[in-house]
Amino acid sequence: MLRNELTEFLHIEYPIVQAPMAGGVTTAELVAQVSNSGCLGMVGAGYMTPIQIREQIREIKRLTSNNFGINLFVPNEFNVTENEMELANQILQPFRDQLNVQPNEPLKIPHSNDAYETLKEQIMVVIEEKVPVCSFTFGVPTKEIIALLKKHNIILIGTATTVQEAVAIEEKGMDLVVVQGSEAGGHRGNFIGGFQESLVGLMSLIPQVVDHVSIPVIAAGGIMDGRGLMASICLGAKGVQMGTAFLTCTESGAPRVYKEAICKTTEDETIFTRAFSGKWARGIKNKFMLDMQKHETSLPDFPIQNTLTQSIRRAATSQKNLDYMSLWSGQSPRLAKNQTVETLIKNILSEAKKIIRNFKN
Amino acid sequence: MLRNELTEFLHIEYPIVQAPMAGGVTTAELVAQVSNSGCLGMVGAGYMTPIQIREQIREIKRLTSNNFGINLFVPNEFNVTENEMELANQILQPFRDQLNVQPNEPLKIPHSNDAYETLKEQIMVVIEEKVPVCSFTFGVPTKEIIALLKKHNIILIGTATTVQEAVAIEEKGMDLVVVQGSEAGGHRGNFIGGFQESLVGLMSLIPQVVDHVSIPVIAAGGIMDGRGLMASICLGAKGVQMGTAFLTCTESGAPRVYKEAICKTTEDETIFTRAFSGKWARGIKNKFMLDMQKHETSLPDFPIQNTLTQSIRRAATSQKNLDYMSLWSGQSPRLAKNQTVETLIKNILSEAKKIIRNFKN
Repeated sequence: MLRNELTEFLHIEYPIVQAPMAGGVTTAELVAQVSNSGCLGMVGAGYMTPIQIREQIREIKRLTSNNFGINLFVPNEFNVTENEMELANQILQPFRDQLNVQPNEPLKIPHSNDAYETLKEQIMVVIEEKVPVCSFTFGVPTKEIIALLKKHNIILIGTATTVQEAVAIEEKGMDLVVVQGSEAGGHRGNFIGGFQESLVGLMSLIPQVVDHVSIPVIAAGGIMDGRGLMASICLGAKGVQMGTAFLTCTESGAPRVYKEAICKTTEDETIFTRAFSGKWARGIKNKFMLDMQKHETSLPDFPIQNTLTQSIRRAATSQKNLDYMSLWSGQSPRLAKNQTVETLIKNILSEAKKIIRNFKN
Repeated sequence: MLRNELTEFLHIEYPIVQAPMAGGVTTAELVAQVSNSGCLGMVGAGYMTPIQIREQIREIKRLTSNNFGINLFVPNEFNVTENEMELANQILQPFRDQLNVQPNEPLKIPHSNDAYETLKEQIMVVIEEKVPVCSFTFGVPTKEIIALLKKHNIILIGTATTVQEAVAIEEKGMDLVVVQGSEAGGHRGNFIGGFQESLVGLMSLIPQVVDHVSIPVIAAGGIMDGRGLMASICLGAKGVQMGTAFLTCTESGAPRVYKEAICKTTEDETIFTRAFSGKWARGIKNKFMLDMQKHETSLPDFPIQNTLTQSIRRAATSQKNLDYMSLWSGQSPRLAKNQTVETLIKNILSEAKKIIRNFKN
């Protein structure tokens, strides 16, 4: 009943993609279980080394013979001086003291080139391991990368937050586009316009994008159940990408305190912050986000700030201290449950069937 | 096919409510035409005097025998000193000079009580003229007002931006609740939590509210066509309230330049501002909003700032100067058309039918 050009193209049964959440959430178990359930599991590999990627891909292949995908970050330009970096580092010291974390080693400004080199190495693994699907966030990869991946018949997915970005993704020859609504948790994927302008709700974003591209559109942001799936399809999307709904599943690698925090949160308790990574992202409001609000706009860009806060986030996680963890979540936490992937997908499908049945009457 | 408890309760054919846009948009012609088309026309009467309300209601009754409704503002607390008001007034002087507008007369701080008195007088007209439906924004009216209106069998609609606000509206005994997503144009209706926290996209807001109230939910924000209507119903709403879609219709009282501006705008060109009224509202980005951004958070509350900017908005409108007009719009301006109400509704219904037909296959 839910088969369409998207499911056919991705060789999946149901038009549901598990969002490629970076930072340890997308375990091999989660990805494989999603793919085994007839949906598309995705590895959030943005922060992973080529070696880690290869290991995880091989583990997933042992657990499923179905299609799955991987997500990589397109490097963004950043400008930072050593002084700015040192200042940003000093701002973080009280948080390190609080968590008994060692001060950072003297910091060197990374080269923009390094990130491109990493991306190329990541992509070589994707090609060698014949990963069927590769999605990108934070921009569109270069012509050369797109051509290389296409030569190896890898399905390419871009991430857009506006009509203009979706059109650019189609023009560059990508096969599918994920549209990220303002409801979405985690990092914003905007790469042409500004952050504020990229905050378009899915009720507005889906139909306006659908009217301007011919590649299939996958909706992302706040979608948690069969109601969100069917609503997205009504608006013209061919499928959905769900993050928070999978993050709280048993198979996800998110720490237990993080899963519990989402399940206890309400729709009006997530806000945007640059404090953790230098890039705007939506998460559950906590002490770190509030304390850092006064520095918000002067912090260094991604990935500099991300590197600076790494030890804080790690220590907070190992100390189960929610005050200083990055608790990314979309705007529908009241719909989150700690359940198995199998139960989640079964419920989505039965809800979708019920909605269709009601329309038939 | 779209009949449900909402259409039955409101005595309308289709579950579509025309948003009660204040400031001259909801002409008698617009309201009556919407009601004559089987939907619910609504007068945006927040800024109208009791006499103006009575006249317009009588005119509408001459044009339609169907149900229609009216919207009133619940007065909010405001704190302002004469100094703050004078400072805010000075900030506006360059704009007055630009438009050749006379300086404001010396300003007096209004009493909060005045607004309550006005509301009571407005409500007496609603009762005397037997308006079948009355909706409220910016809060929940007092127990006494609710009891009085209910005694006269007037259907009461509240406006919520979060689950907590929707629950409060149900608890106070109102019959229906409009949930305003972050996509919505014009003023935010938040009255319990803060502005930022009230910005929940409809994909998240509708299902979470539906799970927590038992009164019918009407979705508002970025809904422009049959796709948005059907999506809202999938998410659990019983109907939709559309503003921008009706604002650009032939019958609306919005100035022609304003209608044209919306039809030329894209989804990433509306932002929030307090500069026009002292209350956050979404509109098309223009010179006034950008010039005033540095004062944004220090401006006096609604309705003080609204009074201060009145002569500027009036002059800009009469000079057809888009730089200084308040160009409220939701996030779906690419879907706006200058068409008759009849055509708009006919298209919504045929699109909805097509979506239902597709599900049946």
